[in-house]
Amino acid sequence: MERRVMLLNGPNLNLLGEREPQVYGERGWEDIEAELRQLAAEMGLELECRQSNHEGDLVDWVQEARSGHAGLIINPGALTHYSYALQDALRALVIPCVEVHLTNPQAREEWRRESVISPAVTGVIAGFGALSYRLALLAVRELIKNTK
Amino acid sequence: MERRVMLLNGPNLNLLGEREPQVYGERGWEDIEAELRQLAAEMGLELECRQSNHEGDLVDWVQEARSGHAGLIINPGALTHYSYALQDALRALVIPCVEVHLTNPQAREEWRRESVISPAVTGVIAGFGALSYRLALLAVRELIKNTK
Amino acid sequence: MERRVMLLNGPNLNLLGEREPQVYGERGWEDIEAELRQLAAEMGLELECRQSNHEGDLVDWVQEARSGHAGLIINPGALTHYSYALQDALRALVIPCVEVHLTNPQAREEWRRESVISPAVTGVIAGFGALSYRLALLAVRELIKNTK
Amino acid sequence: MERRVMLLNGPNLNLLGEREPQVYGERGWEDIEAELRQLAAEMGLELECRQSNHEGDLVDWVQEARSGHAGLIINPGALTHYSYALQDALRALVIPCVEVHLTNPQAREEWRRESVISPAVTGVIAGFGALSYRLALLAVRELIKNTK
Amino acid sequence: MERRVMLLNGPNLNLLGEREPQVYGERGWEDIEAELRQLAAEMGLELECRQSNHEGDLVDWVQEARSGHAGLIINPGALTHYSYALQDALRALVIPCVEVHLTNPQAREEWRRESVISPAVTGVIAGFGALSYRLALLAVRELIKNTK
Amino acid sequence: MERRVMLLNGPNLNLLGEREPQVYGERGWEDIEAELRQLAAEMGLELECRQSNHEGDLVDWVQEARSGHAGLIINPGALTHYSYALQDALRALVIPCVEVHLTNPQAREEWRRESVISPAVTGVIAGFGALSYRLALLAVRELIKNTK
Amino acid sequence: MERRVMLLNGPNLNLLGEREPQVYGERGWEDIEAELRQLAAEMGLELECRQSNHEGDLVDWVQEARSGHAGLIINPGALTHYSYALQDALRALVIPCVEVHLTNPQAREEWRRESVISPAVTGVIAGFGALSYRLALLAVRELIKNTK
Amino acid sequence: MERRVMLLNGPNLNLLGEREPQVYGERGWEDIEAELRQLAAEMGLELECRQSNHEGDLVDWVQEARSGHAGLIINPGALTHYSYALQDALRALVIPCVEVHLTNPQAREEWRRESVISPAVTGVIAGFGALSYRLALLAVRELIKNTK
Amino acid sequence: MERRVMLLNGPNLNLLGEREPQVYGERGWEDIEAELRQLAAEMGLELECRQSNHEGDLVDWVQEARSGHAGLIINPGALTHYSYALQDALRALVIPCVEVHLTNPQAREEWRRESVISPAVTGVIAGFGALSYRLALLAVRELIKNTK
Amino acid sequence: MERRVMLLNGPNLNLLGEREPQVYGERGWEDIEAELRQLAAEMGLELECRQSNHEGDLVDWVQEARSGHAGLIINPGALTHYSYALQDALRALVIPCVEVHLTNPQAREEWRRESVISPAVTGVIAGFGALSYRLALLAVRELIKNTK
Amino acid sequence: MERRVMLLNGPNLNLLGEREPQVYGERGWEDIEAELRQLAAEMGLELECRQSNHEGDLVDWVQEARSGHAGLIINPGALTHYSYALQDALRALVIPCVEVHLTNPQAREEWRRESVISPAVTGVIAGFGALSYRLALLAVRELIKNTK
Amino acid sequence: MERRVMLLNGPNLNLLGEREPQVYGERGWEDIEAELRQLAAEMGLELECRQSNHEGDLVDWVQEARSGHAGLIINPGALTHYSYALQDALRALVIPCVEVHLTNPQAREEWRRESVISPAVTGVIAGFGALSYRLALLAVRELIKNTK
Repeated sequence: MERRVMLLNGPNLNLLGEREPQVYGERGWEDIEAELRQLAAEMGLELECRQSNHEGDLVDWVQEARSGHAGLIINPGALTHYSYALQDALRALVIPCVEVHLTNPQAREEWRRESVISPAVTGVIAGFGALSYRLALLAVRELIKNTK
Repeated sequence: MERRVMLLNGPNLNLLGEREPQVYGERGWEDIEAELRQLAAEMGLELECRQSNHEGDLVDWVQEARSGHAGLIINPGALTHYSYALQDALRALVIPCVEVHLTNPQAREEWRRESVISPAVTGVIAGFGALSYRLALLAVRELIKNTK
Repeated sequence: MERRVMLLNGPNLNLLGEREPQVYGERGWEDIEAELRQLAAEMGLELECRQSNHEGDLVDWVQEARSGHAGLIINPGALTHYSYALQDALRALVIPCVEVHLTNPQAREEWRRESVISPAVTGVIAGFGALSYRLALLAVRELIKNTK
Repeated sequence: MERRVMLLNGPNLNLLGEREPQVYGERGWEDIEAELRQLAAEMGLELECRQSNHEGDLVDWVQEARSGHAGLIINPGALTHYSYALQDALRALVIPCVEVHLTNPQAREEWRRESVISPAVTGVIAGFGALSYRLALLAVRELIKNTK
Repeated sequence: MERRVMLLNGPNLNLLGEREPQVYGERGWEDIEAELRQLAAEMGLELECRQSNHEGDLVDWVQEARSGHAGLIINPGALTHYSYALQDALRALVIPCVEVHLTNPQAREEWRRESVISPAVTGVIAGFGALSYRLALLAVRELIKNTK
Repeated sequence: MERRVMLLNGPNLNLLGEREPQVYGERGWEDIEAELRQLAAEMGLELECRQSNHEGDLVDWVQEARSGHAGLIINPGALTHYSYALQDALRALVIPCVEVHLTNPQAREEWRRESVISPAVTGVIAGFGALSYRLALLAVRELIKNTK
Repeated sequence: MERRVMLLNGPNLNLLGEREPQVYGERGWEDIEAELRQLAAEMGLELECRQSNHEGDLVDWVQEARSGHAGLIINPGALTHYSYALQDALRALVIPCVEVHLTNPQAREEWRRESVISPAVTGVIAGFGALSYRLALLAVRELIKNTK
Repeated sequence: MERRVMLLNGPNLNLLGEREPQVYGERGWEDIEAELRQLAAEMGLELECRQSNHEGDLVDWVQEARSGHAGLIINPGALTHYSYALQDALRALVIPCVEVHLTNPQAREEWRRESVISPAVTGVIAGFGALSYRLALLAVRELIKNTK
Repeated sequence: MERRVMLLNGPNLNLLGEREPQVYGERGWEDIEAELRQLAAEMGLELECRQSNHEGDLVDWVQEARSGHAGLIINPGALTHYSYALQDALRALVIPCVEVHLTNPQAREEWRRESVISPAVTGVIAGFGALSYRLALLAVRELIKNTK
Repeated sequence: MERRVMLLNGPNLNLLGEREPQVYGERGWEDIEAELRQLAAEMGLELECRQSNHEGDLVDWVQEARSGHAGLIINPGALTHYSYALQDALRALVIPCVEVHLTNPQAREEWRRESVISPAVTGVIAGFGALSYRLALLAVRELIKNTK
Repeated sequence: MERRVMLLNGPNLNLLGEREPQVYGERGWEDIEAELRQLAAEMGLELECRQSNHEGDLVDWVQEARSGHAGLIINPGALTHYSYALQDALRALVIPCVEVHLTNPQAREEWRRESVISPAVTGVIAGFGALSYRLALLAVRELIKNTK
Repeated sequence: MERRVMLLNGPNLNLLGEREPQVYGERGWEDIEAELRQLAAEMGLELECRQSNHEGDLVDWVQEARSGHAGLIINPGALTHYSYALQDALRALVIPCVEVHLTNPQAREEWRRESVISPAVTGVIAGFGALSYRLALLAVRELIKNTK
């Protein structure tokens, strides 16, 4: 059975902890990733984390996840709101996929209220800060069990 | 410390398992509730589940949750899309609140894409079927820890 | 075979004959109901009429009609235009359902032109005053025959 | 007293039974018309049925119905959604007029949800297949009685 | 020099004097046409009046006006609001063309406020009842003078 | 002469003084009501105050106000923005009716800018906090005088 | 009988002949006014021409036209598209009023397609350059005759 | 303490009693002003009333009210719907300001439903005819007390 | 095997070569048709070309193409943008159908950007002038091969 | 060569330094103007500054700038968003014209995001506070050089 | 003479044959490319095929096609709907350019109905599956002939 | 003190002088850059110019500018209108940032009128051709002074 879960972070998520901490929280990504890796290990999963500011990289990686991976977690950052290319790539996935947001986009600017990504994912978890990622990992584990 | 978590289901969620099972899944609510209660007990929480087809009941109960409760989980059903009264009630809460959906509203009819509830909750979990509730319970536990 | 037909009237329809008679006609509901009951009896059907100003009551009753009833006639009043909860309840019905309006909503205010109920019913009859109900009853009888 | 009722079918309704039978039903128009004629005869009415794919023919015929006819039944087909010329012609009628649809337009594509015809008719009956026409005939008979 | 002016009336304008006289006035078209013919004769012009409820006839006639005519007057009736085919035909004209309306569309229903015809004509005269046509004839005479 | 004035408060107004005091003020409803009762008594009026989180209760009460009352004051809370059922109930009133808001909805969120209630009331008073109610009572007294 | 006709030109119409002559024509206003005065004299009317770049002046003058004048001709310039104050002033007129435009606004920029003035005038003449004014004068003469 | 209250009336309000009396009432402004002055005197306030059809005058006067005045009452007339300049001027005020309307704009034409003025005032009173002004004066007196 | 291909041209396409040659090209239809006929003959197909300014004719012909034809090529002209009747007729076709445009509608006026025809055809070829038709013929030949 | 540059400030800009200093800055206009005059003098230009709360004044002045001036700098204040009259006046200018804003309108309220002025100016400078004016002056100097 | 034709495929088109085969067909790109190369060779053209999931690569390549190429064929995939950068790059081309789609976007989701690419290309071919590319190649050959 | 200023050009700006010179001017970027470098040197600043057609590169570079730079100048090209990723990156900057456009987007196509970048920058300079960059450099120098 596949044990690898790909976790993708979109544009500007490499600035976590530095960018607008009152909005996105004060923890940096390294810290969050360490915690997630440990949680994954406890679940018998292997977490593979990548970040890019390039839409094309994310599309490439989603395509790569089509083989050798059991699940996908993606926080598309601002691409959430206009990257139909990412939607198309996600539609071509058959493994479980969870869309994650640190903040609750419905409680922010008008343009953050529409996600062009959501129609192509299994489910969405938004608004819990770093906890959103942990919940996504738990969700992926359950979804993998069900699809086996 | 408060250990009670209120879980509210809105209109038609009493039909779970009977209504459009290809959309909402085949498990009935009793079954899901039993599983959630056990999970809550394991976490040291007490789960209090209610359902109503009346918007006013839900508003009353959200107000009731203002005292003696540590967290709120709410699946507002179709009220998600027009009950500003429920939004106002939720805004008046200070305990953590998680909005839950069985399905992924962004992947369904146009009118299901807007939630008037989301701007007033801590976070949203949608699209995982009965698993959405379990994740919400996990989220509430973590949020309670942080607010203590 | 089931012979009961449920007839539901939404908010303010209890004021028929009193409210804006130049718009809604001068006959009171008692008068109309008596006529409908007699017509139903002639068809071998039993008519069960209820009215409420509470959306939740109507949702409860539509759920109740799921067992022991052969058909549903509903005039949702102003709820026609925003009660997605009622739409969801009607979607869960398998018996024939007819939406009725005394007036022709397309010929009135802008907001009366959209029905969020219509996508969930078998058919719509609008604009014939009290005659709309009689036609609905005739329609239900025919639809019951076909589904037997 | 006038006994003639004009029944007009708009574009593509001559294909009934052939065109998308899963949507419009399997009965051809000849079959439906025969049934309607008999029903009309039983009511002491004379039914005059015409069909055209030309908006102008329908406008001509509605104008013709202004004299020598007691009522009008019209299924404008796709013209329902853009023929303001037909609306204007119908506005100039003083006899009762019923708009008929085989299907329930509110449950179909977005552009089928608006009727530019409805504001000019007495009432609307939609969603009952061939039964829609029979109900319309019953409605016209009642309306004629009231206007005498 | 060409002396012929074509005057085209669109759908339902043959009902002038009969249809909603409180809106469109009480004079019939024959009466108005006689007055216009005399006025044209005084100006040394020959007026050629046609009416049709068929969009296609109006397009055919506009095309016909491309040769042997000095000007065009058109009251497109309800086609004003959706006949892009008529707009295209008018765009292909090089002689002066005046759009006429008996009433002032801006003071009526929402859908009467847009003219898809206006972008293709020389000028518009609206709101003066039968006088609108006389002014249009005067305008055409002046425009012909200028283009000679 | 009728001396009773009904005062209705909609969803969440029972939380006055507790809910977002920086928005809605710090005075609780009991305090405001006492002041209003005294003012009413000075005017020779009798004030009857009710609150509900249920739209249906408000519709019931507005219908009740049709007999035995001289005027109505209503703060519909969030129902202001979507309760067409309440609008219909208010339309059926013949006594003076004043819509009241503590805050100025035009200065808040987009969705608070439209009132579906206003088209059915005599007048609107908004933005003055508890003073809005006092002004409404003064307005009702004057309106009653005029309608006597 | 009143013989005076007020003619009002709005913002920037004092630049006629200078401003974008390919759009508005090459004749200056003095030239056009002289021609109009002579035409008015021939009709036994007295023409009173004023221009202002100030909306308030135009409102003042429309109010002034309420006494001692038989008709009003107004080219509101760019105010056509947003001056509701001018609409209100024109609504208070009882004498005939003609809205004039040199160009055909429907054939220009999007924002020039809506007139907030038109709902308050008797009729509209647009697109004929200086001839628009002459036609307006003819129209006013006829309208005055009819209202006598 | 400042005792002066400025009352500003916008375009066309000088026509009160003459313009569309069925809409705006039959009392002229002089009459209303006299009553208001007396009421103000009884409250120990001095009322300073001005009217203009010029947006710029109203902006000038609102700026003038910034010194030497205790409160402002403004009925912006049609400027309510587009004068962002007036909004900006009102935003710069620190004294209480009440927006007044004789009629209830929500019950009238579509374009009267939005107020660009409301976001910049303390509160709004609309729909009570001349009584609207009296209520505004009462409101201003109370607001002045609170800000002292 | 059927060898006949119907080619339909909508309103104003009979003016090709005369109408706005800078937009639609300088070749007349006779010239284009001759070239197409020869190309069809080389492919072993028989081309049947018709043109009408009447929507109804085009609907009639599309219905006629349902028997005895192997494919349909249609340039609906301005009907592209509003003829839902034509869409319905095309939906009832089972043979391959190609929508053709001389120009690229996306590069022209706003209203030319939506095609109500496209959802009912196999494919679209636009922007190549007369070459669009030749490509359509090639496409039809290939599509016929595939459906045999 | 012309050396005069006209600088126009629209409604409420006379309150600079007093009005919402956290938004518009704390420097008063006199201070800014002195600095600009000196900068202009250094460039060999003569600056002519005017301010008005009256749209008409600004239109008059823009027309005046058509002769004897080398360039125009305009901060239209709130008129930016609705004064089509000012747009028309600016269109008639042939000298360089720079639109200036103290703040960045795109970062403020929705209605401040559209400028109806911008389509008629050479360029726009926004968001730099008083520095916006200095940059505009530098821009005008360069533009004058190029047009000489 | 240039004989090279560049063919560009946008995001996710490398998954052809794998991704949603019921929508995009079952043939892989290698297969289609081989067929196209042979067809190009027969026409005396040289085909240069590239694919990228990166918008920037496509922009780079379109710029590269500005020299040494005779034509461009582009299937922008999901970038069709938002890549204004690609539109700008295509606008800067002078060689013929054909936009290709495997499916008919007008018959799919709402967001696929607008192409921001189309305004910048010579023509569009959509809906024919792999045949779309062959038709595009034929189109390019003809367009090259004409531009020589 | 930091002396480096980063200047970023988005997609297609490498084609300056070649692409649509009537729109974007005839000077190539090398020429403009040389001039800017010299101007920067005179101000004691060091200019670092980069261009990319890749959104991701621009996001990377904006992040890079967070350290070691005193200011940022950015012409996002077509990304102006949809790159929310760039907006997010710019929001995370604390140094002054100026958005530059060669042309005046408000005077061009509809889609060029909205900038999703502007809400995240200090100010905007648009419409002055190459001069826009020089003004931006002057602005940055002043802004740096103020923030020191």
